[in-house]
Parts: sequence; structure tokens; C-alpha cells
Amino acid sequence: MTEFDLAVRGGTVVTAASKMTCDVGIKDGEIVALAKQLGPAARDIDAAGKLVLPGGIEGHCHIEQKSSSGLMTSDDFKSATISAAFGGNTTVIPFAAQHRGDSLRKTVEDYHACAAPKSVIDYAYHLIVSDPTPEVLGQELPALIKDGFTSFKVYMTYDALRLDDRQMLEVLSTARREGALVMVHAENHEMIRWLTEKLVDRNNVEPKYHAVSHSRLGESEATHRAIALAQLVDTPLLIVHVSSEEATSEIRKAQDQGLKIYGETCPQYLFLTVEDLDKQGMEGAKFCCSPPPRDVQAQEAVWRGLQNGTFQVFSSDHSPYSFDEKGKLSAGPNPPFPKIANGVPGIELRMPLLFSEGVRKGRIDIHKFVEVTSTNVARLYGLFPRKGTIAIGADADLAIWDPDLERTVRYADLHDLAGYTPYEGKKITGWPTTVVNRGRIVVSENTLQVEPGSGEFLARESSEFAAPLGQLAPETDPARNFGAQIL
Amino acid sequence: MTEFDLAVRGGTVVTAASKMTCDVGIKDGEIVALAKQLGPAARDIDAAGKLVLPGGIEGHCHIEQKSSSGLMTSDDFKSATISAAFGGNTTVIPFAAQHRGDSLRKTVEDYHACAAPKSVIDYAYHLIVSDPTPEVLGQELPALIKDGFTSFKVYMTYDALRLDDRQMLEVLSTARREGALVMVHAENHEMIRWLTEKLVDRNNVEPKYHAVSHSRLGESEATHRAIALAQLVDTPLLIVHVSSEEATSEIRKAQDQGLKIYGETCPQYLFLTVEDLDKQGMEGAKFCCSPPPRDVQAQEAVWRGLQNGTFQVFSSDHSPYSFDEKGKLSAGPNPPFPKIANGVPGIELRMPLLFSEGVRKGRIDIHKFVEVTSTNVARLYGLFPRKGTIAIGADADLAIWDPDLERTVRYADLHDLAGYTPYEGKKITGWPTTVVNRGRIVVSENTLQVEPGSGEFLARESSEFAAPLGQLAPETDPARNFGAQIL
Amino acid sequence: MTEFDLAVRGGTVVTAASKMTCDVGIKDGEIVALAKQLGPAARDIDAAGKLVLPGGIEGHCHIEQKSSSGLMTSDDFKSATISAAFGGNTTVIPFAAQHRGDSLRKTVEDYHACAAPKSVIDYAYHLIVSDPTPEVLGQELPALIKDGFTSFKVYMTYDALRLDDRQMLEVLSTARREGALVMVHAENHEMIRWLTEKLVDRNNVEPKYHAVSHSRLGESEATHRAIALAQLVDTPLLIVHVSSEEATSEIRKAQDQGLKIYGETCPQYLFLTVEDLDKQGMEGAKFCCSPPPRDVQAQEAVWRGLQNGTFQVFSSDHSPYSFDEKGKLSAGPNPPFPKIANGVPGIELRMPLLFSEGVRKGRIDIHKFVEVTSTNVARLYGLFPRKGTIAIGADADLAIWDPDLERTVRYADLHDLAGYTPYEGKKITGWPTTVVNRGRIVVSENTLQVEPGSGEFLARESSEFAAPLGQLAPETDPARNFGAQIL
Amino acid sequence: MTEFDLAVRGGTVVTAASKMTCDVGIKDGEIVALAKQLGPAARDIDAAGKLVLPGGIEGHCHIEQKSSSGLMTSDDFKSATISAAFGGNTTVIPFAAQHRGDSLRKTVEDYHACAAPKSVIDYAYHLIVSDPTPEVLGQELPALIKDGFTSFKVYMTYDALRLDDRQMLEVLSTARREGALVMVHAENHEMIRWLTEKLVDRNNVEPKYHAVSHSRLGESEATHRAIALAQLVDTPLLIVHVSSEEATSEIRKAQDQGLKIYGETCPQYLFLTVEDLDKQGMEGAKFCCSPPPRDVQAQEAVWRGLQNGTFQVFSSDHSPYSFDEKGKLSAGPNPPFPKIANGVPGIELRMPLLFSEGVRKGRIDIHKFVEVTSTNVARLYGLFPRKGTIAIGADADLAIWDPDLERTVRYADLHDLAGYTPYEGKKITGWPTTVVNRGRIVVSENTLQVEPGSGEFLARESSEFAAPLGQLAPETDPARNFGAQIL
Repeated sequence: MTEFDLAVRGGTVVTAASKMTCDVGIKDGEIVALAKQLGPAARDIDAAGKLVLPGGIEGHCHIEQKSSSGLMTSDDFKSATISAAFGGNTTVIPFAAQHRGDSLRKTVEDYHACAAPKSVIDYAYHLIVSDPTPEVLGQELPALIKDGFTSFKVYMTYDALRLDDRQMLEVLSTARREGALVMVHAENHEMIRWLTEKLVDRNNVEPKYHAVSHSRLGESEATHRAIALAQLVDTPLLIVHVSSEEATSEIRKAQDQGLKIYGETCPQYLFLTVEDLDKQGMEGAKFCCSPPPRDVQAQEAVWRGLQNGTFQVFSSDHSPYSFDEKGKLSAGPNPPFPKIANGVPGIELRMPLLFSEGVRKGRIDIHKFVEVTSTNVARLYGLFPRKGTIAIGADADLAIWDPDLERTVRYADLHDLAGYTPYEGKKITGWPTTVVNRGRIVVSENTLQVEPGSGEFLARESSEFAAPLGQLAPETDPARNFGAQIL
Repeated sequence: MTEFDLAVRGGTVVTAASKMTCDVGIKDGEIVALAKQLGPAARDIDAAGKLVLPGGIEGHCHIEQKSSSGLMTSDDFKSATISAAFGGNTTVIPFAAQHRGDSLRKTVEDYHACAAPKSVIDYAYHLIVSDPTPEVLGQELPALIKDGFTSFKVYMTYDALRLDDRQMLEVLSTARREGALVMVHAENHEMIRWLTEKLVDRNNVEPKYHAVSHSRLGESEATHRAIALAQLVDTPLLIVHVSSEEATSEIRKAQDQGLKIYGETCPQYLFLTVEDLDKQGMEGAKFCCSPPPRDVQAQEAVWRGLQNGTFQVFSSDHSPYSFDEKGKLSAGPNPPFPKIANGVPGIELRMPLLFSEGVRKGRIDIHKFVEVTSTNVARLYGLFPRKGTIAIGADADLAIWDPDLERTVRYADLHDLAGYTPYEGKKITGWPTTVVNRGRIVVSENTLQVEPGSGEFLARESSEFAAPLGQLAPETDPARNFGAQIL
Repeated sequence: MTEFDLAVRGGTVVTAASKMTCDVGIKDGEIVALAKQLGPAARDIDAAGKLVLPGGIEGHCHIEQKSSSGLMTSDDFKSATISAAFGGNTTVIPFAAQHRGDSLRKTVEDYHACAAPKSVIDYAYHLIVSDPTPEVLGQELPALIKDGFTSFKVYMTYDALRLDDRQMLEVLSTARREGALVMVHAENHEMIRWLTEKLVDRNNVEPKYHAVSHSRLGESEATHRAIALAQLVDTPLLIVHVSSEEATSEIRKAQDQGLKIYGETCPQYLFLTVEDLDKQGMEGAKFCCSPPPRDVQAQEAVWRGLQNGTFQVFSSDHSPYSFDEKGKLSAGPNPPFPKIANGVPGIELRMPLLFSEGVRKGRIDIHKFVEVTSTNVARLYGLFPRKGTIAIGADADLAIWDPDLERTVRYADLHDLAGYTPYEGKKITGWPTTVVNRGRIVVSENTLQVEPGSGEFLARESSEFAAPLGQLAPETDPARNFGAQIL
Repeated sequence: MTEFDLAVRGGTVVTAASKMTCDVGIKDGEIVALAKQLGPAARDIDAAGKLVLPGGIEGHCHIEQKSSSGLMTSDDFKSATISAAFGGNTTVIPFAAQHRGDSLRKTVEDYHACAAPKSVIDYAYHLIVSDPTPEVLGQELPALIKDGFTSFKVYMTYDALRLDDRQMLEVLSTARREGALVMVHAENHEMIRWLTEKLVDRNNVEPKYHAVSHSRLGESEATHRAIALAQLVDTPLLIVHVSSEEATSEIRKAQDQGLKIYGETCPQYLFLTVEDLDKQGMEGAKFCCSPPPRDVQAQEAVWRGLQNGTFQVFSSDHSPYSFDEKGKLSAGPNPPFPKIANGVPGIELRMPLLFSEGVRKGRIDIHKFVEVTSTNVARLYGLFPRKGTIAIGADADLAIWDPDLERTVRYADLHDLAGYTPYEGKKITGWPTTVVNRGRIVVSENTLQVEPGSGEFLARESSEFAAPLGQLAPETDPARNFGAQIL
């Protein structure tokens, strides 16, 4: 009789803080043993010469999400989770996005109905709160948080989603009271609107002007304001998809002061620039996302933010829109930039890109790679230690990487339905070759090995990073932080 | 026949950049000669042992202003200009405050009707723009700017006055196009409202809670945002009545980058603290203003800002409300703090306070004193070189100071109608004893020497400080400051 | 036959990135298995309800070190390593301190002769380079680095130790070339000397004046300069024992820019203040160390630096001098402060203090605790992954902590020979109760279980943190960083 | 009988704080009257359509200075003061440079002997202190300060001049005690030396490598250190010839904190770049000075520093060395960069360059121009209000500028003896056409009008900017600024 259902043998097992050559023994979906040489297993995977990493956790992606105007992302839970799995992920946390007037609970149920039969890996949802009514804040949110939806995202721009400062304060203080984590899309709505109108007035409507309308100033202003609002109510806050040195610097300054402000960045801010939006014809539309890619100097600032710990997590912000009338070009074959659907795909390449350009080129080490793509995501979103590391009792979520495998990116090789990739033609060294989720081999031999619906929903704990800071600096002047005392 | 109408003889004449002992010869309201010893004049003032300074210009005061709810400041143009004159001023620039729905032109005419018959010294108005309709922005403002109303103030808080970010952008870009200067009251409206509700919910309604509701964070957030909005449209901006180190620091950082951001502070931020709001009973209401006085550390930061040039001007923000049912207590004898009229009087003591605590105590020199109380005010608001210095051809606006005169502040000795002074009992060394406006002796021998209505209206030029900066830093990345190019 | 020499059973095993409940199986001094329930072992330790952490690595301590004037630290390798072990450590890295004129190789051999027969846990040495002759830089250092002495410390103050800027550049560029890590004691020598002379001139010679002579300015100036020197030659640098917000801020700013500058702080900067130096009589001498403890505001800044990652490591800087004529009072019973031996003991309490005040009080989490006391120390000093974490194939270095054990600090309970502890009377919750080094139970039942001489010398690899940063920001202007190109 | 010796009629008279159209009446070398129309004078200058500015004060220039190795600047007091006068100056303050071992008093007398018979405009000296012996600090300096030598310069680099940190502290505290102002050449000596050796080792000896050896880091490090030393002894300090954004930023940060740190910059940092050092053959040697010109980004930072008040004064640092064996090429026709004499000429073009590029192009206004080239120089160096402005009783030092006169720079048109100008071929709009010093017409009709020896020596008062700051921020923690208390 075998002791293990599965054994991964002889690989270099790496966590955010350890490196060891050993076997990994798996039973009933959990890691149950680590040892130099384990006894027999029902099935073996030979990982000699490979890296065995915790499965990636994709903490920011839009799957089967319908906008209030009816536009759908091109991926459903099947294609998106398959694509994620091929990219080394074992968990995705997309959004359950409330439309104004809708119940949050109902929203969650709708997404459940989509995800449950289709997901090939584990999943959870962040809530998007676009309509923070007293009912939502007082009843639905607290109940959902108790049910394991412990994070929610708010928007400072987009007509259908944006909250004003008052609503932000209400959401943030609710999060504080209920122990949830708030994520924010920080761009100044009126700056975008004003610049857009000026540009359209001049008929500057090519895709590249999207980047002009979403200025660095708009991003850094909103970042600063969101931090101030969070500081007023003494609540942690995550700034997502940071694109520029200015916004990075705002986050860093908050951290300097000891505030619990966190930051996320994405591949598009490391590997694309505004030049990509200026490609021939409508080609630039493929690169339109918000905030937009900036320039080389901004890329360097974002790399620095990853290296020095300003950013805790690295996500794809996968927002796939097909390059046709159902997606990017839904407003016609030559839409002005304000009518181009916002977003880029990236769920499958997030980790290979960072591995190749980050780890292989010496910008970050392998432990940092694991930290920002998996461990910190788990900790930030209440999945740790069940997810995010390789440890006894943890879910057997593993990605086995061949660090020397070179492949050129071709959309044809990817598994999402966006129809294109912004990284076409890029050479990448280092790819996941086998992916295991709760002991199930999801991907191997370049083939999907499981059925849709085999992924499981994850109810989440409170964020580890949102725990109170303690009383390090009791202010003696009541006027200095009285805000916190009236919460 | 005498050469001069008036001669001020033998004083130490000081400007922001000169110091000399000489006679000042005046004719037809102008300074026409400076010399060691001038020929005969119709009238002489002996200034030996005295300082002869340019008349103060009070650039921020509320006179005969009616709020949208009908509350009146306690001073009309007579009492306010008399009080200003006794405090060493020869010009005041109060506000012509638009109520929503009103025409700006009509507003200006209403204020003219009040000011013209009553003012004892020269005057102009800043406009307050609370309703930036297309008509206002496209027609009225440009016409009024041409007529010499070259500055206007906007509010980021107060229900009846506040502009949102979009309106701010419209006002700022109008100012840029028309060569006007924008002044901003920078506090985050929703933070104030949210804190106020929380405080009132807990029945924390004593005056001191006013300071809590108007937090430093709310001030620095709005300051940062206002600067970002101005930067987007590449327009100079003046942040008025800065109270805290945090807001001072935001202004300083903008100046570090070469932005044309200016700052103003006031006596209440150098000489009062939040402790004053915590006085017995309703006494604290006398000190309620917005932003509120902070603490000693903030005072030091504000002094530093004066010393190192972060602030260009020092104003009173004179907002007199009587301590009775017509003013501070209009909502009853024991109003909760949100019902207490906001503002403190200070038009007469602005300069004596700064002279005594600043110049006499070595914190600033006499040239800096003249600069921030007169010269820079004139330059900032388009009155220079007619006003703001002592020069041939300039208006004969002089204040003769006895630098050694010691007097204890008693409201009974002041000339405004607030009914109290926040500085009661404070010892001040150095007072203006004779004040001359356009050659007219307005104050001497502790007595008013002119009739109401003898002050003149001043149409103003564009601000000197709002002139374009030139092309020092042409950005090569269009995404970096494209905003400016589409203006 | 048993599979394991030792098994630690049922504890909560925590690394810097994992948390799991499991058994730890040990054989031949290594960790060979982690599993929910392991098979039989020759010996078992029941860790149920306990934390099983990687053994602490004390990366900064002075053991059996003789100053150039002949003063000895009060601990030898026996007492120091026993004290370290009782404090949860399994490795110490004291200094092999070169005296001017001495050979470095000979210095190392002398320390070997002391350490080998006495150490109860594993050990390595940092070199102290006080005489960087061409021989030392060109021959001895490279050879010693190859032999595993991969880090060295330099001093910017102390007559017998200090290097000037030129020598610093030579040492730093040698480190760069040979792949070693430089640690620096950063205080401005001439500032200390000048202040000391002024103080002594005024007969201000009580212990508290020690803190005055070692000013914050002297610390932050030297920190800034050391960073600039390291930046010139493009070499990583560790600033040790940081005491103040000013120096913390210099390190943080370097990290902001992407420089590989690291920071260390110590218990004395979190738990002592300058008030302690002002105790009755000579009592304050017990707290004299350099840099000195500062004030509460500095403590908060240092906590913040631990929390936000400015500091990578937390060490004791154990420098034990007995409170008698052989140590603190070697210059007489009432020495003026410049004659008081510098240093405080702390090797045994470093981790309990941080656990109790940091982890228990919610200032840092348990993973951060492990990171700064063990994992990062191992990575920084080239001992990882053999040391610093709990992983298959790593040395079986474990500390089993009772997180709820409350004990009041009494010197009588400690094992060093300083004769006193600066933390006498402090209540601490959370203590290591069993300590295992390479599978040997070193401490259990509050008793030492091994013989002197059973610790082993560790030849070290190059620092992981000193690896090249890659080419993120190739400067296009040669004048901007030409320095790096000529190295 | 005429009332005046000289009258300048109808010009636009501008000071740092006034602008007026008037006549200037002069008698006995003083300005005695300003009026719209003055009575008859012995001599008239028609200034209609011209600017009448205070004569420039050149606060930083090397005249007839011999280095310790015997190298002479190419100008003596005759040529240098003539050149200065043609450039709009009426006062120069060169250095009396002590050689080690020499008496300061003797040094001053030697310079007197050179200057007195040759100067065509007024002059004073800063002392250069290279040998701060107890005799120098305790006797000579105090006596010379009393005699009107109220400022002195120290060097942090150059073998023959540099002071170490201890000497800096002694000089700074002497300055504090005696009320003098210290100027500092801030570059890190060992960084320069180390880089130079590396460059020479690689035979990188062309002039452009001079800029590499004098790195930005070396400048900013020394600037930071000098500020820290001044802060320790609580003394004002002027950082001269600032070339880079990094050093500018260090000064600005000190000013942010309220420290009395001043800054100076020069034409070479606004109008030259490192590219100039890379010209064909030895041509680049003409541009070698220390610190060296940097790049365009540094130029912008320096402009910003002028605009926002970081720099108080703008000087030439005129250091003329002929381009032959007596100057730049004294070490041979092809000297390696360390042997090239350091310095560029600029005394005649300082103001025309700043006027043309600054005032005409809208980067600064005319008041700021007067402030940094004259008024602040006078105030900083104790010549105000006798010099530096246009006021009754002040010396009649005037420069009459034709703001529209266009001329292309040709060395042949200049009056110094450097033999070349770094600005050859540059188009300048705005030149001084008539220069008056103490009522004497020095330059008019493009011709020198006075005899050598007609300039006068100026004994100076204490710097206005060095007056104590007052007690704004009494520290409650003695360890925080105890330094000041023991001074």
C-alpha cells in the first residue's frame, strides 16, 4: 500500500524563505511529507533539475465579468482558469462585480453559478462595491465577509463604478469594523474626463491618446487621496495596478510613516510602454488599459518598487477583450480611444515574464518571486497558510518549473480567449511544466489533465496584513489623529 | 510756494530690499521725491526714530459679506477699513462673493455699492466663484478680469461654495487663458462632513471639536489635490490660510519641482492653538475658524515656512462675527460646533503681531516683514509697483511705525466691530502710529483723519507671479505632461 | 531500528514564509523529514502547543575580544555561546578584530584558538579591518574570503579602528571585487571628538553626556557618507546598529533609489532610552554604548524601520563589560564618560525581547520575527539555506518556544558574565525552552546539555544580498555614474 | 550752482523690490535724491528707455591669486576690475588666500598691496583659511573680522587647502563666536583622488575625465557633510558654486528644516555642460573647473534652485587661467586632466548671461535678477545697505542697462586677460552700457573712464544672513541638539 497519492521527487523546492532538494509527499490533496527520499506513492512526478514552487495565486483578474453596458470579458471561468493553470497558477481570485442597484449577495451567487461548473483550479472572489447603500454596508457586506469574501475593490473612476470620497470613507470604515481589506483603483475621475474631452475636441482619438487622458498626475493624485482617506479611518488599503514612479512614491511615503498601505503592480507596467499604444492603425488598442503603460523610466521605478518591497504583490489584472466587435472594437472598427474597451490579457504570462526578466536577469531572487506571486497574495487575501507556500498540511498546490526552458511567446500557444497577447514574440526563459492543485495534476505534458468544475471555491479568512498595527505612536495632541478615536 | 503736499521727514525708510534715512516727498497722492532733506511741504510729518514702511495691503479679508444663509460679517466697509488703517494698512482686498445662481457682475456691483461710500482706504475685490456656469466662465469672468478683477477664490468645502474637481479644472483653465490668479480654500469636504457626523453622533459638540472635524489630513489632502489640478492645467495657484506642517510641506514640495504654487498663512496659525478652542463654556467659539489653529509644532512649521519662503504672503483672513446671536451664536446660546460661524477677526493686529513676534524677536527681518505684508501682496495681486513699495511714482501709501512702542492688546482699543479679539491681553512691541494713503493722512494721533468714502477702488493688473515660467523643462515623453499641450 | 536520531513532534513549525503543525525528523545533524506524523526516533521532543522556529543567528556580537588598549569583553566563547543558546540561538558570528600592525590571518587564527574548544553552538567570524594595507587588501582579505570569511566590518570612529574615506573606498572596492559584504559602524569621528572635548572642558562627564557626545547628527552624517562611498564603487553595504530616525531615514532613502543598502538595529534602540544613562551615580554607565539609546520618538522610528523593511536584520551587538575595574570602571570608580567602556550585553535577551514586545504586542508578525533574527541573517552572511530556516537538508537548528511563558528578567537567570543586564526587571512573555543545534539538544529543562567545544566553525558563502542588481538603469550620461565603470 | 554732481535721468530704476521711472541724483559719491525730475547736475546721463540697476557685486572671484605651487590667475586687479566694471559690476570681493604656514594678516596685506593701486571699482576680500592654527583661530581671525573681513572660505578638497572635519568644526565655531560667515567648497577629497587615480591608471586623461573625477556624489556628499557640521555648531553656512541637482537638493532640505544654509551658483552651471569638456584636442581644458559643468538635467535643477530661492546669490567664480604654459597648460602642451589648472573666466559675462537667458526668457524676473546679483550679495557679505540697492544715502553704484542691445560674445570684446571665453559666439540680449561707482562714471561709451587705483577698499559689517535665528524650536530632548548648548 502506498503512503502517498502523489510524490514530487527530487526537485529544488523553493518557498519565499527556504530552498531545499527533497521529495514532496501528497495525500488527500494536502502536502503531508517533505523528505530527502519518500516511500512509494501511487503516482510519481520526477522533478530533478526542476524548481518546485508554490502554485501561483492570481489575485487580480476579471473573468466572465459583464460591464454595466453589457460588454463581456472574452474569457469564461473555463478558459481563464485553464490559461491560469498553464501559467503556473493554482488559485484565481477574480471579481464578483456589483452593478448599481443590484444586491451584492445576488451578484456573488451569479458568479458562483458561472464558476462552479467551469473552473479547473481553485477560486475565490473579491467583491466590487459600486453601490454602497446602507443596506449593502450594514447588512450584505458584513454577512458576506463572514462567509469568506474578505476583500473588496472600489473604483475612483469609471462612471458606472466610481465612489466619491464620502462613499470611500463609508466603505473603508466598514472594512475596518468587519476586518476586511479594501483594494482601490486610484485614478482621478475628473482629470480623465477633462483630458478626454479636450483630446476628443481636437480629434486626438487614436489609441495612444488613451495614455494621455489617463495621466500620471491623475493616478498619483488619486493614490494620495485614497491613502489619506484610509489614514483618516485608520484602515489598511491596497493600491492596485500601480504604473508610475509618482504613484509608487506616494505608496512608499505612506509606508515610510508606518501606515499599512500596500501596493500591487502588473506585467504591463514592467514590459510594455506607451510606445506600444502608438502602433500602426488600431493595433495600439490591444495595449489600452488603465492605468496605461508609461515609459522606460516608469518601468524602472516599478522594478525598484518590487525590489525594495514597496509592492507586496504582482498580479496580471487580466482583462481580456477580443480584438473584434465583441471586445476592443465593440464601438466600431475604428473607435475613438474613449470607446476602446480597457484591459489587457496576461493571466498565463504573468509569472513566466517575471521569472524570465526578474529572476533570470538578477533583478529579483527566486524567493522574492515566490513571495510576490504566491505567498503574499495568500497572506494578503486570507488564504494563508492553506495556500501560498509549501508546507505540511497546506493544500498540495505546486508548480514545477523548468528554469532553463526557452520559448517564444505565441498567442497560438496560450489558452485564454483574448485572441492576442501583448507580449507576442517575446523570448521567455523559464516556464512551468507541471501544475498540481490540491494534489490533482492539472497540467502536464503541455496538456490539461482535469475536467472543468474540478476547482473548488475558497472561503477566505481575514487578511493577515490588515491586522491592527498596535499602539506604537499614541498621539498626545488630540487634534493630530482624533479621527481614529471616533471610529 | 511749496514743492510738496506732504513730507515725511527723517524716518528710516524700509522697503523689501532697501533701508535708508531720508525724507519722503508727496504730491498729488504720489511719492515724488526721496532725498536726505527735501524742500518745504504744505505739511510735515516728523518720522525721526521711526520706521517708514509701505502701507500694508490686506489681501485676505471678509467685509460686509453675507453668507448664503444670511449671516453677515460684523464689519462693514467703514469699520473694517478704519480698523485696517489703524493696523497700518492702506489697501484692503476683500471678496465679492457670488451666491449660486447669481451673476458675478451683479455681485461685484453690490459690493461696490457697499464699499464706495464707506471705505477710508483703497480697496479692490477678489471674486469668489461658487457657480462656474458656462456663462460665468465664458463671459462674466473674462470681462471682469479685463476690468481689473484679476484674482478669484474657490472653495473645496462648504456646501454653498464648494467646487468639485471638474469645476476646479474649468476655473483653473479659465484663469490660465485669461491671465488671472486662483486662490483656493483647501480642505476635503467629505472628510469634514464625515468627522462632523461622527462627532455629533457622540454628542462631541463643544467648540474644540471643530478642530477635530477640520483635520490636518483633510487640509493636506485637499492641498495636494488642488496642486495636482493646477499642475494638470499648468496654472499658478495660491493656497490660502495654511495652518499645518503637512499642508506647508505639500506646497514646499511643489515649489521644489519648480511649480508656481504659492502659499499664504495668517496670524491665527502663528499665535493661537487648538487649546484656545478648549476654553471654558462657549468661549472657544471665538477661536473657531477654518482651518483651525493647530498646536505648537504646527506653529513652528508655519514660522519656518515664512522664513524659508514657502509662504509669499501673510494675511489676516479677517472674518469677524460678533459673539452674540447675530454672529457666532446665531444658532442659539450654546450651538454645537457645526453651527458656530467660522472665522476670527484680525485685520488690525495682523502686522503688529508679526512685527512684535517676528521682527522684534529675530525670527524674520524687517525686509521680509515688508515683503509678506505688502510688496508680495501687491505683486501677487497685480497692484505693483503702484502699491507695495516706496518708490517714485508709486501711490503715497505709508505706515509710520514706532518700533519700540509697547502696548497690551485690548479690544476696547481696536476699531472693528467683532466685539472681541482673540489676542486680548497679548503684549505687542511696535505699532503703526501714522498711516498715509495716497498722500492723505488717514490715521494720526490715534485718531481717524479722513471721511468714509475717501478710499478708492483699484482696478488691478494681472499677477506678476502668474507670468509663464518659460520652457525650462520640455518633456520628451508626451505622456508626462501632455495636459499642458492641449490647453 | 529508528529512522531518526531525533524527532520534534507536534509543534507549530514557523519559518519566515510558512506555518504548519508537524513533526520534524532529524538525522546526522540535518533535518531530513517534515510530516504530520513521523515514525520512531531515538529521541523525541514533544512540542505540542509550542512554536518550533529556526535557531536564531546572532550576527553581531563581541566575544572574547580584546581592545587595542587591552580591555577584554567579559564573555569568552563558552559563556557567550551558552548565553546565546539559552536565548534561542544556534549560531553566533562574532568578530575577529584586527589590531593595527597585525596580520588578518593571524588574527583569525587567534580567535579560532579561543572559539574551537569553548563554543557550545556553531560559529563564524566577521573580520574587523582596521589596517587596510596593500598586503591586507591584496593578499590576506582575498584569501580569507575564499576561506569563508565573507564579511568584514569597518569603523568610521574610534582612534584604534577608524578608517578614513580613502581607506573606506579601498575596502569597499575590494569587497566588490571579491564578493564580500562590508558592515559599517557609522558615526562621525570628529564630531564625537569635538563634542567630547567641549563636554569635558565644562566638566560634563556623567554617563548621560556620552549620549550627547554621540549625537544623532554624527550618526546620520556618517551613515549618509558611508552610503555615498558605497554608491561610488557600486557595492552593497550594511549599516549596523542604527539608533535614530535620522540614520534610518538615510538608509530608507538609499533603498528608495534602488541601492543595495541594508540596515540592522538592536534591542537597545527599541527598549532603552537616554533616560537610562541618567540614572543615579555611575549606574548610567551600564547603558553606555555607541550609538547610544535615544528617545521614545527614535524608538518609534526604529520600530517603523523594522516593520516596513528598512532593517533586514535584528542583532544584539552584545558587548559585555563587567561593571567593575575589569570592564566599565577600568579607568577608576568614577570615570568620566569618555573612559567608560562602550557596550551593553544582550545576546540572551535579543529574541525574547523582540518576541514579547514585537510579536505578542502585534507590532510585527511571527514570520517577520523569524526573518530578522534568523533567515535574513543567514542570507546576508552566506549561511543560507544551510542555516536560517527549517527545511529538508538544512542543519537541524531549532528553537522551541513557549509563546505564553511569562518571566521577569533577572540577571541571576542569565548565562553571560557581564554581571548585569540593562533589562533587569522587565516582564517578558515568550521564551525558548529547548534549543537544538545540528541535531544536538543544546538546552532543555533550563539546563545546558552539551560540552564546550561541540559547536562547529562555519565557512561561509558570499552574501545572497550582495549579488549584483543587474542593469536596470544604464545611465546615458557618463558623468552620472562613471565611477562604476572604472571599477 | 548745481545741486548734484551727477544725475541719471529718466531711466527705469529697479531694485529687488521696486520699479520706478525717475531721476537719480548723486553727490559726493552717494545717492542723495530720487525724483521724477531733479534739478541741474554737473553732469547728466540720459537713461530714458534704459534700466537703472544697482551695480553688480561680484561675490566670488579669484584675482591676482597665486596658488601654493606658484600658478597665477591671469588677471590682476587692474584687468579683473576693468572686466568686472564692463560687466556691470561696481564691487568685487575676491579672496585673500592664506598659504599654509603664512599669517592671515600678512596675506591680507599682500593682497592690499596688489589691489590698492590697480582697482578701478570698489573691493573687499574674503579670507581663505587653509591653516587654522590656534593662533589663526584665536588671534588673527577675530582681529581681522573686527577689521571688516567678515567672511571666509574653506575647502574640503585640494591638497594645499583642504580642512578636515575637525578643522571645519573649529572654523565654524569660531565664525559663530565672532559673527562671521563661512563659505565652503564642498567636494569629497578622497572620492576625487580615488577616481582620479583609477582614471589615470587607465590612461583616461583627456579633459572630459576631469568631470568624471569630480562626481556628483562627491559634491553632494560633501555638501551634506558640511551642512551637518554647521548644524552641529548652529552656524550659518554658504555652499558656493553648486553644480548639480543632488547638491541643490541637500541645501533645499536643510532650508526645509529651518537651517540657515545658503547656496550660490554660477554661469558655468547654467550655460555649460560636460559636453564642452569633450571638445577636440585640449580645447576641453578651457572648460575645466570644479565642480565641473554637468548635463542639461542638472542645468534645469540649478535654474529651479534660482527660481525657488534655494540659491541666494549668483556669482562668476571667475578663475582665469590663460590657455598657455602660464595657465591651463602649465604642465605641458597636453597635460593629463589632473594637471590642468582649474577654473573658468566669467566676471564680465555673469550678469549679461543671466539677464539674457533669465530675465529676457522669462525664467526669472528683473527683481530676482537684482536680488541674486547685487542685493543679496551685499546683505550676505555685510555691505548692505551701503551697497546692493538704489537708496538715499547708499553709494552711487549704478549700472545702466540697455535691455534690447544684442551682441554676440567675442573674447576680443572682453577685458579680462584669460585669453578666451567659454561663451564665445553666444548671442546675448541686454548689456550694461554705463557703470557708475560712488558717483564716478567708470564705464561709458564702451570705454573705461577712470584710473587704476580709484576703487576703494570696503571694510564690511557682519552678514545680515548670519544673524541668530531666535528660539523657535527649543528642543525638549537634550540629546537632540545639545551640541548648540555647549557652544
